[in-house]
Amino acid sequence: MNIEKQSLVKASIKSISDYPKPGILFRDVTSLMEDATAYKATIDMFIEQYKDMGFTKIVGTEARGFLFGAPLALELGVGFVPVRKPGKLPRQTISQSYQLEYGTDVLEIHTDAIVAGDKVLMVDDLLATGGTIEATAKLIRQLGGVVEHAAFVINLPELGGDKRIQKMDIEVFSLCEFDGH
Amino acid sequence: MNIEKQSLVKASIKSISDYPKPGILFRDVTSLMEDATAYKATIDMFIEQYKDMGFTKIVGTEARGFLFGAPLALELGVGFVPVRKPGKLPRQTISQSYQLEYGTDVLEIHTDAIVAGDKVLMVDDLLATGGTIEATAKLIRQLGGVVEHAAFVINLPELGGDKRIQKMDIEVFSLCEFDGH
Repeated sequence: MNIEKQSLVKASIKSISDYPKPGILFRDVTSLMEDATAYKATIDMFIEQYKDMGFTKIVGTEARGFLFGAPLALELGVGFVPVRKPGKLPRQTISQSYQLEYGTDVLEIHTDAIVAGDKVLMVDDLLATGGTIEATAKLIRQLGGVVEHAAFVINLPELGGDKRIQKMDIEVFSLCEFDGH
Repeated sequence: MNIEKQSLVKASIKSISDYPKPGILFRDVTSLMEDATAYKATIDMFIEQYKDMGFTKIVGTEARGFLFGAPLALELGVGFVPVRKPGKLPRQTISQSYQLEYGTDVLEIHTDAIVAGDKVLMVDDLLATGGTIEATAKLIRQLGGVVEHAAFVINLPELGGDKRIQKMDIEVFSLCEFDGH
C-alpha cells in the first residue's frame, strides 16, 4: 500500500467526541470526501488492490458504502448494487436481519441484482462489529453470488468485526485502522 | 448531448408500477447502476456538461444523490459534500425543513462543509416536485455558497420541479425526461 496516500487518507478523517452518544469517538468519513485529494487517494488505493481480480459486481451498503463502492464500480467497469434499509428498493427483494446493540435491523437487496456465479466485492466506509457486512454477505450468497472480499476505508480492530468476517471465509482489507470505537 | 449515450441511459432505467404506492410509476435508477456501461455514460455526460466551469464543491442529497454526485466530484477533482436526514452528520450542522405531500421533512448540512464563495453544483437522481433540491439550495446559500446549477439523471417535468428551481435562479440540467410521475 502507498504509505503517502494512506497517511493522507487517515489524516483527513476527523474524530468527533461523544457522537452519536457519550463515550463514543466517531470517525467521520465526510471530512475525507470534502478533501478532493484524499477522496481520490482512497479510490486509487482500492483500485490498486482490486484491479484485475475479475469481480463482476460491487455491492455497497446504505448510505456511506455508496460513497466508496459506486466510484470503485465505475473505475473497475462493473455494475454497482445497493443494499438498503427496508422499503427503499422498488423491485423484488430478499431481506436479512442482523443484531444491533439493542434490538435488530434489516437489510434488503434486489433479487435480480446478483446472478449465480457473480464474483462480488463488498465495500463500506467502516468495519466495527461487522454486523451489517455479515448480513450483506448472507444476502449475496443467498442469491448465488461468490463473495470472498470486503473493503473498508476504516477498520476498528478492537471491535472484532474483522475476525467475524474472516470466519465467513471473507478477506478483509482496510486503508487505515483506529484504536477504540 | 450525446444522443447514443442518452438513449442507453434512458433504456437502462426500469419503470416499476404502483411503487411506492398504487398509481405511481416509479423510475428506478438502481437498474442504471447495475449496468456498468449505462452508469459510466451517465457520469460521462455530466462531466461533458460541467467540466471547466470552475465548481469548487459538489453537493449530493441522501441517499441516491450520493451515487451520482460523488463519482462526479472525483472526476472533476473537487470535494463532495453530503446533505442528509437529521442526526446523520457528526459535526455542527444547519437544517432546513421542506414540505412533503403529507407533513414536512428536514435536511442537514455540515456548517463547515461550504465556505463563502464556494461555487456549488447540486446533483440528485431525480427531479419531481423539487422540494428536496430547493431545501438543499437554501442550505448552501445560508452558508454563503453560490449555487446556480442543479443536475439530475431524470426529470419529471409534469411535476413542475424544474420551474420551481429555475425561479431560484438555478439552471436545471437532466439526462432524460419521463412523462407522469
